[in-house]
Amino acid sequence: MDFSLTEEQTAIRDMAESFAQDEIAPRALEWDQARHFPVDVIRNAASLGLGGIMVAEEFGGSGLGRFEAVLIYEALAKGCAAISAYLSIHNMVATMIDKHGSTAQKKTYLPRLCSAEILASYCLTEPSCGSDAAALTTRAERDGDDYVLSGQKMFISGAGATDLYVVMARTGGPGAKGVSAFLVEKDAEGITFGANEKKMGWNAQPTRTVMLDRVRVRADAMLGPEGAGFKLAMEALDGGRTSIAACSLGGAQSALEKAVAYTGERKAFGQKLNEFQALQFAIAEMATDVEVSRTFLWRAAAALDAKLPEATRLCAMAKKHVTDSGFEVANRALQLHGGYGYLADYGVEKIVRDLRVHQILEGTNEIMRLIIARSVLAEA
Amino acid sequence: MDFSLTEEQTAIRDMAESFAQDEIAPRALEWDQARHFPVDVIRNAASLGLGGIMVAEEFGGSGLGRFEAVLIYEALAKGCAAISAYLSIHNMVATMIDKHGSTAQKKTYLPRLCSAEILASYCLTEPSCGSDAAALTTRAERDGDDYVLSGQKMFISGAGATDLYVVMARTGGPGAKGVSAFLVEKDAEGITFGANEKKMGWNAQPTRTVMLDRVRVRADAMLGPEGAGFKLAMEALDGGRTSIAACSLGGAQSALEKAVAYTGERKAFGQKLNEFQALQFAIAEMATDVEVSRTFLWRAAAALDAKLPEATRLCAMAKKHVTDSGFEVANRALQLHGGYGYLADYGVEKIVRDLRVHQILEGTNEIMRLIIARSVLAEA
Amino acid sequence: MDFSLTEEQTAIRDMAESFAQDEIAPRALEWDQARHFPVDVIRNAASLGLGGIMVAEEFGGSGLGRFEAVLIYEALAKGCAAISAYLSIHNMVATMIDKHGSTAQKKTYLPRLCSAEILASYCLTEPSCGSDAAALTTRAERDGDDYVLSGQKMFISGAGATDLYVVMARTGGPGAKGVSAFLVEKDAEGITFGANEKKMGWNAQPTRTVMLDRVRVRADAMLGPEGAGFKLAMEALDGGRTSIAACSLGGAQSALEKAVAYTGERKAFGQKLNEFQALQFAIAEMATDVEVSRTFLWRAAAALDAKLPEATRLCAMAKKHVTDSGFEVANRALQLHGGYGYLADYGVEKIVRDLRVHQILEGTNEIMRLIIARSVLAEA
Amino acid sequence: MDFSLTEEQTAIRDMAESFAQDEIAPRALEWDQARHFPVDVIRNAASLGLGGIMVAEEFGGSGLGRFEAVLIYEALAKGCAAISAYLSIHNMVATMIDKHGSTAQKKTYLPRLCSAEILASYCLTEPSCGSDAAALTTRAERDGDDYVLSGQKMFISGAGATDLYVVMARTGGPGAKGVSAFLVEKDAEGITFGANEKKMGWNAQPTRTVMLDRVRVRADAMLGPEGAGFKLAMEALDGGRTSIAACSLGGAQSALEKAVAYTGERKAFGQKLNEFQALQFAIAEMATDVEVSRTFLWRAAAALDAKLPEATRLCAMAKKHVTDSGFEVANRALQLHGGYGYLADYGVEKIVRDLRVHQILEGTNEIMRLIIARSVLAEA
Repeated sequence: MDFSLTEEQTAIRDMAESFAQDEIAPRALEWDQARHFPVDVIRNAASLGLGGIMVAEEFGGSGLGRFEAVLIYEALAKGCAAISAYLSIHNMVATMIDKHGSTAQKKTYLPRLCSAEILASYCLTEPSCGSDAAALTTRAERDGDDYVLSGQKMFISGAGATDLYVVMARTGGPGAKGVSAFLVEKDAEGITFGANEKKMGWNAQPTRTVMLDRVRVRADAMLGPEGAGFKLAMEALDGGRTSIAACSLGGAQSALEKAVAYTGERKAFGQKLNEFQALQFAIAEMATDVEVSRTFLWRAAAALDAKLPEATRLCAMAKKHVTDSGFEVANRALQLHGGYGYLADYGVEKIVRDLRVHQILEGTNEIMRLIIARSVLAEA
Repeated sequence: MDFSLTEEQTAIRDMAESFAQDEIAPRALEWDQARHFPVDVIRNAASLGLGGIMVAEEFGGSGLGRFEAVLIYEALAKGCAAISAYLSIHNMVATMIDKHGSTAQKKTYLPRLCSAEILASYCLTEPSCGSDAAALTTRAERDGDDYVLSGQKMFISGAGATDLYVVMARTGGPGAKGVSAFLVEKDAEGITFGANEKKMGWNAQPTRTVMLDRVRVRADAMLGPEGAGFKLAMEALDGGRTSIAACSLGGAQSALEKAVAYTGERKAFGQKLNEFQALQFAIAEMATDVEVSRTFLWRAAAALDAKLPEATRLCAMAKKHVTDSGFEVANRALQLHGGYGYLADYGVEKIVRDLRVHQILEGTNEIMRLIIARSVLAEA
Repeated sequence: MDFSLTEEQTAIRDMAESFAQDEIAPRALEWDQARHFPVDVIRNAASLGLGGIMVAEEFGGSGLGRFEAVLIYEALAKGCAAISAYLSIHNMVATMIDKHGSTAQKKTYLPRLCSAEILASYCLTEPSCGSDAAALTTRAERDGDDYVLSGQKMFISGAGATDLYVVMARTGGPGAKGVSAFLVEKDAEGITFGANEKKMGWNAQPTRTVMLDRVRVRADAMLGPEGAGFKLAMEALDGGRTSIAACSLGGAQSALEKAVAYTGERKAFGQKLNEFQALQFAIAEMATDVEVSRTFLWRAAAALDAKLPEATRLCAMAKKHVTDSGFEVANRALQLHGGYGYLADYGVEKIVRDLRVHQILEGTNEIMRLIIARSVLAEA
Repeated sequence: MDFSLTEEQTAIRDMAESFAQDEIAPRALEWDQARHFPVDVIRNAASLGLGGIMVAEEFGGSGLGRFEAVLIYEALAKGCAAISAYLSIHNMVATMIDKHGSTAQKKTYLPRLCSAEILASYCLTEPSCGSDAAALTTRAERDGDDYVLSGQKMFISGAGATDLYVVMARTGGPGAKGVSAFLVEKDAEGITFGANEKKMGWNAQPTRTVMLDRVRVRADAMLGPEGAGFKLAMEALDGGRTSIAACSLGGAQSALEKAVAYTGERKAFGQKLNEFQALQFAIAEMATDVEVSRTFLWRAAAALDAKLPEATRLCAMAKKHVTDSGFEVANRALQLHGGYGYLADYGVEKIVRDLRVHQILEGTNEIMRLIIARSVLAEA
């Protein structure tokens, strides 16, 4: 067993950390307050190879694995979890196309996705079905050489500002097997976008409803075989869960560092805060939680890369554990800052707000428990 | 032992609940987003007797006890914790004057405070001393018939929008006994205000630094005897801690009600959410935590009214327990809403943000532990 | 609202505390290790009026309320939770007879129960139904003027050493309404007892299976009307839940006192343990949890006395909250003792072992959550 | 990074699991109740190479690494945590001699330790110093060619039944640098043993005080250089902490398996327990906690093998995290068994009792926090 990063992995992580420190962190608070989606910065990240991390090099990608991806998302999230998370979604779509797309689809989209010339969104959730995604009602009706899509997709990251939408829609009967995936472009007729939702956090990326009103796409816009859409969507989420966990990890690491720095400077009762034993205990617990989370996330990501049969279970465990633990660490870091932690300027309350949604999306942590329980009980 | 509310108490609580439901709740989200301090609504509350809840009736107050006050703050906080909390601070100042003011001070300020014609702020914390309040460095130098105050006060609720500031300043040597309290009016020469701080929540009330640059007040602006300022400030905080706990309780109760309503409507996998056992367990735990908190808060408030020797300890326990538990309940309510909980429109994420600061202010929950431990160990 | 004990209540509690300190505490460890059921001590307790706390005075009882009962059980449990808990079960049976028995039943049993000349056991649980008590399968067949009972009752406190068994048995069809209660004496033909179970704790009272093999009782041995047995059993458990919670509270209070004493004596790194801030924090949290639990338990007991409609819900909340919190406090007290806490001689590990079962019996804390959730959702 | 076991590692683990299942598990309850130390079984384990897991092969050891050791201790602890833990202590002493002993010491002791012909104990803690081990007061006075040792060592695993004692004693001034380590044989004149302590658990191994009254040993009984004893002892504890964590892990894994089995058989309300969603959630959380703990423990052990600078910190984190989490998992497994969990026969309460001490010994989890905090703050 080997827990050390290769030189290449270390270099990749350091590069992403530098980028986060130079180009993301200094402006993250401003983007949060202005609800600004920094497309230019995302393009800069893409110019370093982060637009298609796992995409084959022949299509402009970096050809890396899931393991490297989580290193990158953690590093970026130290600058801003919301930006890192959006980038992970963009990459998720690119990877779906890389793995399941036709040659034409790959040629059409991957180079531009990898350079972030175009940005992507993932459209699964609907207003009346979140956890129960297989119950989705967006229809894709065959009409000659085309499909005509109608329905609503909700909580879509990037929507309105992105160019390519992978839309899960029903081409067959009820249940998971009646769902197919489609690549829909932003300027397709009949596609419109709701207002940018006001949210607790994740303000550096827009969240909108995508409304599809008889949106016509050619049959070759289908991604993967007919009826395979739900399977593709779920497979993508396995990876997506490690990504979102990595974003929580980066946020938590950053919050911990802020708390260590703050308690090393601030004084009370004639001592530095970090000389108070109870606060030292808090820091020890937070540091432990972060390191434990990181180690387990690495294992889940490595399991995906190795295509281990337990990979789905490990990813669900990692998603639940790391996002719960990451929120707690960030929230404790806020507390260690006292009143300053509540002020936007110190940056720690933003992390708490950003990380909160990771416990909900890409499968709530309640759904993770169901996935894990099912797997454990099936094995027994 | 008797745990039932009197008819009068029930009527007071119901009145405050109606007010919160009619005049606060419908606009609370809007105020949060616009960072609007609704002075008109606070005046309306005062017209119902909530501007001087514990102030003697002869000076325009309602002459009620601490127990009734926590009923009121819980009720108001169901509409908006930040508004209720500001009102509790205003009342805290009014009560300080009612208990310790000269007749002239009472006559001058209490009627207008009770009607909320003027609003009040409490100025203890400084940029470099929060928990260690007795180390404050704002000076009040005697100069003939006057005192001249210089220093900075931070995290001042209402500052800039309020009219009367009770300022704890040093008139003597180091430590608690060198501190006196002063009543300073907003238009005093030399008083200026920092920017309205950007905060995680509590956006419906401004928070500013108050800068005192050789602010001259007459000697009779001193509240209570020379050197008694710290004692007065701490005594006020005993009550203030029950108030802030009551605000957490109201927020938690509201969040619980939202979660019960939401899980009673929303469906997944063919069932209402409230038919899923794991979610029922969550609701049961939240409901228990709220009721347990409420009961204990009642006891702490009653202990203050009865001037029991253990009142300070019970108030510290209540502050810690109720504000920690209230945040957890609100945060779980958010989770039960799934993605919708993260959206501002559902109102539950606002509660999480508002309640977060209650674990920090009026003595952090870490300071509460020290107060409790000291008391427990002294008794042993 | 009034949170003070009356003089009489204080006297009752102090009497029970003295008894616990003098007659129970000094031998509790010995009884635990020897698995000895100290019937003589129980009789001594009864001589002070603790054998029929809530039983009418005309039948030899003390005529007190539920509120006084929880004061007593807490006080006794400071000496030994297992003894206090057994006494609460004995009292539960006595109260059932006092409330629902015929005059003949009262005359026959109550005076001897109140004096503890005879001891009682409560027989509801069966090997294959615990939480789902209404599914019980013990039959009571009518045969002329008699009923003939057959079945097995499990986890019966006191069984084998006690004299009177209230047995819930099925006289009708399936479900709760087919159950009746019977008073069965120990020497009835056909009743036998399993081995004294080896348990984690509660060693000062025997736990056995009660086997009923065609046990014949006269029809007038039925307690309450036919078909009312389940209702009686559940009503008794409402009170029983406050009793068991009181036993957890007493155990936790005792563990806290031990921890305070130990950390006030033991030194490390040149300081007393109670001078370490992190340990002070632990003590503060434990003290808070105990006081919060006590207050809520008082409220639940008072609600039962006042026959409030919400009493069942409050009792379920109290059972869950106080027994969970009590175990945690005891377990933290053990930790504060370091290695000594793991040794039997220090008495704190016994408390942990004893309190553990309170989270399970008289309705597991999982069942409590269901009761609470049902009540909360029904109200909404 | 690679998280897969080698074939050899898998074989070693499987061998240890088989041994635990065949020779330990069937009698573990009996040993617990009889407080029996099964020396014969320990010798059988040694015959498989488990008496000197990390000892060089030339002296009869298995020449394995720390990583393999934690696999083995986890596997054995699935049968009985107390036995596995004792074996880890025996191995700790053997490893100390292997790493720091003179050739003569190695030749004299290692072959017999590896075969478990003789058993070893580790003697650091004293009645008045546990956490503050560097304050130990046992003296070793130089007297010609000998040292004369006097003092008391407490909480010594195996004491009285073991043959070789590594004793940390003061040869110099106060503090860590005045301590040396000595190898003392059981039959040395002046060594006596206290009573076998009555404990909450760990009953399958004796715990006694070791009293040294002018015990004379030859100067070459010193292990390592003069003044190096504390350093040796602490270095051994780094490894010891991973061992004890592995014992918690094995116990937790076993408790989880019992809970999965029990909830798959037991029915209530017409369903198997494992069909209740709230219980599924509990199982999912437990399974996650176990897997997360396992992964992190692997990393800490691998760091020791690789002699990474962060190894001490990772070991402290692993000790704290895995033993806390392991106790919680076992305790939840008990709860899932309902009343049966409280009975000795089901084996789960024994796990709870055994694992409880792991949070205390080999450095309490409070001391772990201090080690971690010191390391984190030093780095910052």
